[in-house]
Amino acid sequence: MDELQALQARLREFVAERDWQQFHDPKNLAMLLASEAGELLAEYRWIHNNDADAASQDPARRARILSEVGDVGLSLLLLCQRIGADPIAAMNAKLELNRTRYPADLVRGKSDRPVLK
Amino acid sequence: MDELQALQARLREFVAERDWQQFHDPKNLAMLLASEAGELLAEYRWIHNNDADAASQDPARRARILSEVGDVGLSLLLLCQRIGADPIAAMNAKLELNRTRYPADLVRGKSDRPVLK
Amino acid sequence: MDELQALQARLREFVAERDWQQFHDPKNLAMLLASEAGELLAEYRWIHNNDADAASQDPARRARILSEVGDVGLSLLLLCQRIGADPIAAMNAKLELNRTRYPADLVRGKSDRPVLK
Amino acid sequence: MDELQALQARLREFVAERDWQQFHDPKNLAMLLASEAGELLAEYRWIHNNDADAASQDPARRARILSEVGDVGLSLLLLCQRIGADPIAAMNAKLELNRTRYPADLVRGKSDRPVLK
Repeated sequence: MDELQALQARLREFVAERDWQQFHDPKNLAMLLASEAGELLAEYRWIHNNDADAASQDPARRARILSEVGDVGLSLLLLCQRIGADPIAAMNAKLELNRTRYPADLVRGKSDRPVLK
Repeated sequence: MDELQALQARLREFVAERDWQQFHDPKNLAMLLASEAGELLAEYRWIHNNDADAASQDPARRARILSEVGDVGLSLLLLCQRIGADPIAAMNAKLELNRTRYPADLVRGKSDRPVLK
Repeated sequence: MDELQALQARLREFVAERDWQQFHDPKNLAMLLASEAGELLAEYRWIHNNDADAASQDPARRARILSEVGDVGLSLLLLCQRIGADPIAAMNAKLELNRTRYPADLVRGKSDRPVLK
Repeated sequence: MDELQALQARLREFVAERDWQQFHDPKNLAMLLASEAGELLAEYRWIHNNDADAASQDPARRARILSEVGDVGLSLLLLCQRIGADPIAAMNAKLELNRTRYPADLVRGKSDRPVLK
């Protein structure tokens, strides 16, 4: 069992102990995920692009960012568990698709080809 | 090297081959993540809570959902790579915090205690 | 001068008095808007569809909802002011487009025709 | 009747003609709003802060931005109509609150005091 599988097991136990499956239908979990992504976004709201790397290393901000990264990640895992999806498989499939949609020689150094669609 | 580590290596290679690191500052990646979470949210926009589990198994919708799950997950990994964060460690830390913030005996079966904050 | 125009004038004054135009480029304002929309979304995260109307009238929740409605609306006005857009004109144009895209006789009572795209 | 009131009347008629009130509970409308805000956000995803004003004037991008501004605004109006809220009053109330929370002399020129919370 790798680290992600161990985390998934602990997360299932956390939800079951609290009898929260009843609130965790996929619609509610998609809302949870989007609102947590909004909180992470808020951390960079007033940070200039040029300062975003440095701001991510400021201890107080970094602690908040890592907390939101944790929330977003757990929300995504909860949704995957509920709908019976393998997050690693979904990411691998999308990365392979992007590899063919965005051939390196055509998009190299161009920002107008979104990395993900 | 587990599955997640292998995916992370392929993702780094994907970005480097396209010379996209220049666009991938943490602010832009937080925007990418939030917009992808919005696309996943859109899949459940008009689905009633009572129908959300079944809708997630409809083949056409499921393909779109898995595609968005892939995008959200890859966006989160890109952000973690950029800021030097370990996503599994961030999720484990948040899950442990939630375990103490929401003692099972106090919140069992109550929806007004959000699972994540 | 109607109510919206009066509000717009007060909002411009509010920003100018604080010398905040320097932070209010359109990218940052789009982030502000999305994060505020995420906070509004969070108010309905654990509310079942069947309970959403009643929950919106609960005094404590309603106060929070109206506060977020205010934030989302002000964010949208700030963005419109910055890029020189008329929000009423943009809404009228989109409503007219939707009228032709979704003919009443074809979409009546069907949820799989999104009201807005 | 001012411009906003006229638009509100047309929007009510648009929904009623399509018998879409049944899908427009406040939870679904909050999801609509957040997903439309995510689409607007996506327009600025790869645009550098320094280029965001100019990019907003590029004709093709501007058309997409105005379309999303329309969607976000209409979504907000739909939610206000459903819960019986006056959007102008909500914005005025929040602006007044922000005026007292962020005294001009204390926050002038400082980005670490968010304009809206």
